[in-house]
Amino acid sequence: MKISQLLTKTIKQAPSREESLNSRLLIQAGFIDKTMAGVYSFLPLGWRVMKKLKNIIREEMDGIGGQEIFMPSLSPREFWETTGRLEKVDNLFQARAANKLSKQLNDSSYVICSTHEEVVTPLVQKHTISYKDLPVAVYQIQNKFRNEARPKSGLLRGREFLMKDLYSFHTTQEDLKQYYEEVKKAYLRVFERLGVLEDTYVTLASGGDFTDEYSHEFQTLCQAGEDEIYLCSNCSIAINKEIIDETPECPECGKKKGELEVKKSIEVGNIFPLSTKFSEPFNLNFADSDGSEKQVIMGCYGIGISRVMGAVVEMMSDEKGIVWPEKIAPFKVHLISINQEEEAEKIYKNLSDSGIEVLYDDREKSPGEKFADSDLLGIPYRIVVSKKTLQNSEVEIKRREKEEVEFVKISEVIKYVEKNTE
Amino acid sequence: MKISQLLTKTIKQAPSREESLNSRLLIQAGFIDKTMAGVYSFLPLGWRVMKKLKNIIREEMDGIGGQEIFMPSLSPREFWETTGRLEKVDNLFQARAANKLSKQLNDSSYVICSTHEEVVTPLVQKHTISYKDLPVAVYQIQNKFRNEARPKSGLLRGREFLMKDLYSFHTTQEDLKQYYEEVKKAYLRVFERLGVLEDTYVTLASGGDFTDEYSHEFQTLCQAGEDEIYLCSNCSIAINKEIIDETPECPECGKKKGELEVKKSIEVGNIFPLSTKFSEPFNLNFADSDGSEKQVIMGCYGIGISRVMGAVVEMMSDEKGIVWPEKIAPFKVHLISINQEEEAEKIYKNLSDSGIEVLYDDREKSPGEKFADSDLLGIPYRIVVSKKTLQNSEVEIKRREKEEVEFVKISEVIKYVEKNTE
Repeated sequence: MKISQLLTKTIKQAPSREESLNSRLLIQAGFIDKTMAGVYSFLPLGWRVMKKLKNIIREEMDGIGGQEIFMPSLSPREFWETTGRLEKVDNLFQARAANKLSKQLNDSSYVICSTHEEVVTPLVQKHTISYKDLPVAVYQIQNKFRNEARPKSGLLRGREFLMKDLYSFHTTQEDLKQYYEEVKKAYLRVFERLGVLEDTYVTLASGGDFTDEYSHEFQTLCQAGEDEIYLCSNCSIAINKEIIDETPECPECGKKKGELEVKKSIEVGNIFPLSTKFSEPFNLNFADSDGSEKQVIMGCYGIGISRVMGAVVEMMSDEKGIVWPEKIAPFKVHLISINQEEEAEKIYKNLSDSGIEVLYDDREKSPGEKFADSDLLGIPYRIVVSKKTLQNSEVEIKRREKEEVEFVKISEVIKYVEKNTE
Repeated sequence: MKISQLLTKTIKQAPSREESLNSRLLIQAGFIDKTMAGVYSFLPLGWRVMKKLKNIIREEMDGIGGQEIFMPSLSPREFWETTGRLEKVDNLFQARAANKLSKQLNDSSYVICSTHEEVVTPLVQKHTISYKDLPVAVYQIQNKFRNEARPKSGLLRGREFLMKDLYSFHTTQEDLKQYYEEVKKAYLRVFERLGVLEDTYVTLASGGDFTDEYSHEFQTLCQAGEDEIYLCSNCSIAINKEIIDETPECPECGKKKGELEVKKSIEVGNIFPLSTKFSEPFNLNFADSDGSEKQVIMGCYGIGISRVMGAVVEMMSDEKGIVWPEKIAPFKVHLISINQEEEAEKIYKNLSDSGIEVLYDDREKSPGEKFADSDLLGIPYRIVVSKKTLQNSEVEIKRREKEEVEFVKISEVIKYVEKNTE
């Protein structure tokens, strides 16, 4: 894609009213737009990142037998009365007529889902009758809505945000437990592919409104994080501060609270052994092999996809801008022409024809402005075509996170980029 | 995919409370689930159809330079006050705290978008300053919310539904007009790829809440449709009943109202020359080449994606079930084993390994039940493996819409399916 045709422009000054690093950088670079507090649009560059993130997560969910579905955001109040969460969940939105005309049409109120147990449980009930139908797992990638008090953390805490939520259904606690561990591994593979595995810890946490048991969070170390975890460096697991007084030692090695490291972190995923918390109120039962009726055992598993995007920016940026991990970068190559449009155009075409995603800065701007934008956007490979490089039939290639540059023959550029791809 | 592992089951009796053919068939076959009136979940089979539909539309929008973005559903009330639509749009929803706890957090009210002009106009304003930034076009595939009075038409009219909306921005009326015609052609390509072009007519219609000019709808002939159009068979264009008294003749050949055919139809798409309807209240201006400040000229273009899915089912079904067009069928092949699991398993694996999408009915059911389900699901090729067919090392192949069957050597099956692909 040519920058001259791109909807967005970079902004010279970071938006001063944005309090979080991730939204400051993402708005400045034109990846997102703020519609209002906690509510963002994803612009062409940002949506490209999001699509790649979604595909990585989708592949891993498909890999553990998850079947993709798409549930609505509106749901009947009765479902939430059934589970008792209509009054209990503190950040729930309702939808109702916005004006007189609309009220005349329909004066009902609906719950706008902040999570989908109340929708998926009665849905699955219609299709699972016998032990032969289980286990089964379904997931979706859908917007969630939460009435946050004062969202100030950019994509880390939104009133509207994109989430992957997986729900699993089992005949026994053992089967749930086994699948729960499978999901844990799939989540770690997601974070590995995003390049944040090293700083991500499986963390024991409270079950919140979801389960009376403990849950597990995936916490990524980050100064901007709103969570605090007690980290056991021996076992690479952690305990969320909210339960440290109930469980004041590492569940693996028994290290005491005082010996654990306290770190700021962002919750990028969470998994809950729901057990019968939702199958009980909805009477989600199955006929077992001996003919007896039993309650279905459930688990639920979330990844806040837009939050992950924000977290990656918080962790992977420097004073010049964003440094995207290659697998979710909006483009692989940022091509810059310094008054050599003819040759640059050819290279742009060759790279694109080879299936390499290129953002080509074809604007009439100074080299300095183009370099600054390239650093701000954070695309992995910067390729510069200038009079100097062309003298040796070469281009200059620099990785975003490195200082040194390499000179590569024009005829070798495609091979170079393909070879260096992670 | 094996049916034994699929979340959904077909339902023997069509759901009697569903008033529309499309939702009756789609629920019975397990493509969708009804959460409440006008609100549906897309289940694994239905979501596969939806993804294919989305990709066809995405390809055509990319083809005319549309840049994909993703806007939020929540938007500030002030944007809707700016355009005067907060009180004027009759089916608008608002979002607000659902309970006391939530109200304590934040007592604000937000508009839930039924369309996105109020979001996209101020968004684009931040990035288009000069005539050099125009024209530009952005689109999204996003849920829309409308407070319909009594939604009874399944996917044809939902309170929550999936839509593709494209917005274009121009320096002149001429440039808008030219792009408008380009979009018209892209829409016709979409409907051609879906196999409904022959029954789809560009229809002159009112501009509604969007423009003071006429708009164009894409109306597909269908008995279940809620619209009525006056069709000129000479010119293959139509006039919506709502404006027939203002424009009582074919705009092309001048044929009079009384000579036009009156037909029931479904509106599957619409395009509006917005002109300055939204750039005016938002002050969306640009600096022209002569330095003067002018208003941006806008167009907007919608396709109701979930509605199209419903319309296809209304038009392409018979007394036995759905007949999916090949390009959006959830699978290409429906493989049925009649007590020949070993051989069927091999064929399933071979087809799948060749990249052909196969739904394999591996259940312990009677041939009659399997055939009935196959007709209900509507997958294009039914392949049967039985003792009889195996005697000649063959399988039986039948197209969903045809009566006759063919016998094809097992070694030739992949070639047969690939050759016959549309």
